[in-house]
Amino acid sequence: MEKSGVTLMERARRGDGEGALKAAAERESLSPEVLLAGVAAGTAVVPANPAHRGLVPCGIGRGLRTKVNANIGTSEGHAAVDLERRKLAAAVESGADAVMDLSTGGDLPALRAELLRLSPLPLGTVPLYEAAQVARSRHDAVVRMTVEDLFEVIERQAAEGVDFMTVHTGLTRRALSHLMEQGRVADVVSRGGSILVAWMLQHDRENPLAEHFDRLLSIARTHEVTLSLGDGLRPGAGADATDRAQVAELLELGAQVRRCREAGVQAMVEGPGHVPLGQIGTNVQLQKRLCEGAPFYVLGPLVTDVAPGYDHIVGAVGGAVAAAAGADFLCYVTPSEHLGFPDVEDVRAGVTASRIAAHVGDVEKGLAGAAEWDLEMSRARKALDWERQERVALDPSAVRARRAFLKDGEGCAMCGPLCAMKIVSRALAAHAASGSEG
Amino acid sequence: MEKSGVTLMERARRGDGEGALKAAAERESLSPEVLLAGVAAGTAVVPANPAHRGLVPCGIGRGLRTKVNANIGTSEGHAAVDLERRKLAAAVESGADAVMDLSTGGDLPALRAELLRLSPLPLGTVPLYEAAQVARSRHDAVVRMTVEDLFEVIERQAAEGVDFMTVHTGLTRRALSHLMEQGRVADVVSRGGSILVAWMLQHDRENPLAEHFDRLLSIARTHEVTLSLGDGLRPGAGADATDRAQVAELLELGAQVRRCREAGVQAMVEGPGHVPLGQIGTNVQLQKRLCEGAPFYVLGPLVTDVAPGYDHIVGAVGGAVAAAAGADFLCYVTPSEHLGFPDVEDVRAGVTASRIAAHVGDVEKGLAGAAEWDLEMSRARKALDWERQERVALDPSAVRARRAFLKDGEGCAMCGPLCAMKIVSRALAAHAASGSEG
Repeated sequence: MEKSGVTLMERARRGDGEGALKAAAERESLSPEVLLAGVAAGTAVVPANPAHRGLVPCGIGRGLRTKVNANIGTSEGHAAVDLERRKLAAAVESGADAVMDLSTGGDLPALRAELLRLSPLPLGTVPLYEAAQVARSRHDAVVRMTVEDLFEVIERQAAEGVDFMTVHTGLTRRALSHLMEQGRVADVVSRGGSILVAWMLQHDRENPLAEHFDRLLSIARTHEVTLSLGDGLRPGAGADATDRAQVAELLELGAQVRRCREAGVQAMVEGPGHVPLGQIGTNVQLQKRLCEGAPFYVLGPLVTDVAPGYDHIVGAVGGAVAAAAGADFLCYVTPSEHLGFPDVEDVRAGVTASRIAAHVGDVEKGLAGAAEWDLEMSRARKALDWERQERVALDPSAVRARRAFLKDGEGCAMCGPLCAMKIVSRALAAHAASGSEG
Repeated sequence: MEKSGVTLMERARRGDGEGALKAAAERESLSPEVLLAGVAAGTAVVPANPAHRGLVPCGIGRGLRTKVNANIGTSEGHAAVDLERRKLAAAVESGADAVMDLSTGGDLPALRAELLRLSPLPLGTVPLYEAAQVARSRHDAVVRMTVEDLFEVIERQAAEGVDFMTVHTGLTRRALSHLMEQGRVADVVSRGGSILVAWMLQHDRENPLAEHFDRLLSIARTHEVTLSLGDGLRPGAGADATDRAQVAELLELGAQVRRCREAGVQAMVEGPGHVPLGQIGTNVQLQKRLCEGAPFYVLGPLVTDVAPGYDHIVGAVGGAVAAAAGADFLCYVTPSEHLGFPDVEDVRAGVTASRIAAHVGDVEKGLAGAAEWDLEMSRARKALDWERQERVALDPSAVRARRAFLKDGEGCAMCGPLCAMKIVSRALAAHAASGSEG
């Protein structure tokens, strides 16, 4: 399709829903027209680079099931390709809807090629990471990265088949000036954001991703890459949440969403990060308003800073509340967050926690089938039907593992003979049998 | 104190804050007057039976830190005393504020005596469980339990030193008639509630706990037992949440709270259970209004039914939102919920998840010190001070375990040299050094 010079968004606007759009609608049991309208308007995206063979497309946005992303990828000192293969497999198995390759160590193009080959899920990247590696190799320092270094990487990754890319285009001088004026507890915690801030201060120049936004759009158009407009100034501490720096960047992202739409390029917007519970609704509403309904992709959010080792739980709390408020795409957080390099078990724990959050949000969004799923489990419980409970469960393997402890086929070992379900069923049956005398 | 015939609540009303009240206020770094006023009005409780030697009293209610309860106890076929000792130790170590002995199997009085001896935390029970055991032993069937069987157990447990007791006093014929008229997906899931429903239907009589409420008050007065007015009709499925049966029972509980206060007996009110996210705020507000500000003790709440094996996470989501809305006391849920008998690791996982939820709620309640705790962690992170992060963490052991993977003392293995904190700190320092030219 890209050969014709017509993008997926433009096709949606023409009412042409073949290919990725149709496949994504089918996965959702959704009428194709609904997804078509969402993609046409920009309230939904279907990241689907035609060069990504084997992709099973999926939609993200308003009216769709809340999706979950798993971050994988190497860092220096942890650059084993096989581990990343296994992390990808774990993400797929545990039900992630997308993966991002956030590698910063080892042979990045080789690993990415392997992940693109293996992943049926949309694959995202942060091209700045590879650009930083290129800059260090060519010029001995990340801050010596040239604009050409950066766009060369973006173009190459797009041609390879990357489905969506995080580009921190909103971190403009204007937004940065708010950060400099205001100060912060944790300054900048986005890796991409930190590279750009260092570069902008060093060269006293505008963010190249913002300055050359049209070049970015042209690459995205050519290769059908969905832009994930990143929040380089996202808060890295609850105390920094919803501050002037964050909101200033969001203003830029909102304006850039409109430019994407005008260019027929799909775009979503990334959000925090560290946000106290009571500010999550405000953040979602602000993003939806300022970014004209673009899909909102949040990291967590993490509603407290004090629980390292349990940030998948902290992220599930924030993710559930964010999804219920309208967030469309949850980036998982693993138990290793803030502490170390995640392993395969971390991936499973993170995906599962985020899937719980996404589903809780879907119930609140009133999404077709969401409350019905809960109801199905409740009925299986009432029937003491353990096979059905296992089948219906979000993670059947967790039920299977614990059912090994069951004493008999009838009830769980938790209450033994003092099973409320059984006692009341018997009492109600006896009462009904005794007629209307009671 | 109980010898003088004056209860803790009455002493609070006279302005006498010695003993348990003073100790509870000190633990909270709170002015004793504030706690005194709360206990006097009934918006806070300090469950502290003078017969419980070694108790470190703690307060529960408005203006206080959100507290966490861990359920332990045997069931038939799982009645090893040593396991319960270890579960108690795990609950204390991982930071629970209270424990409930929900034993239904083995020698209940002997186990309870041991737990009372060992527990520095307030200990709660559900006397109906022992009464059911007594009834089965004496009359061969739970439904043949006599009113005397029940009150004999209540009186004995009170004399032994139990600090708070769940009594399902609100499950009246009036409330039950709403359940019978309405029907439900999961009927009754409270074990105490199921016993009462079976008993009431069998004998066509009023709930003995409601009918003899004054007798209950008299025992509670004599032994300084805090009544935890239980919700025998709590929903056991999201589809049953906030239904007529649940609300009808809550109306009874509200009226009974007033009777407790008139009798100088401390009371809190128990709440659900299975509640979709969007109904939690309503549930908390309804309880606070109908029960005249009595402390609210919720189980979870569980915001979805589909994630058995992960109900500690599901309960953390619900607990955080409930606490933020004003719930005072969170009963943990373990990963074994709905599946089997919890072990020591389940206790740790459950307490930790609920403590996260409680803290998230405390930040939203604006509790002194809560946001400051997050800030302290954020500052330690910004300083890359790993020792301080470990010290400040909600669970230092989790940080210690994962820090084994750290490559060096400077930063975490997650990002390696691409550490945003370091990159930005250097860039900002260089910028500041270059003067105002930038």
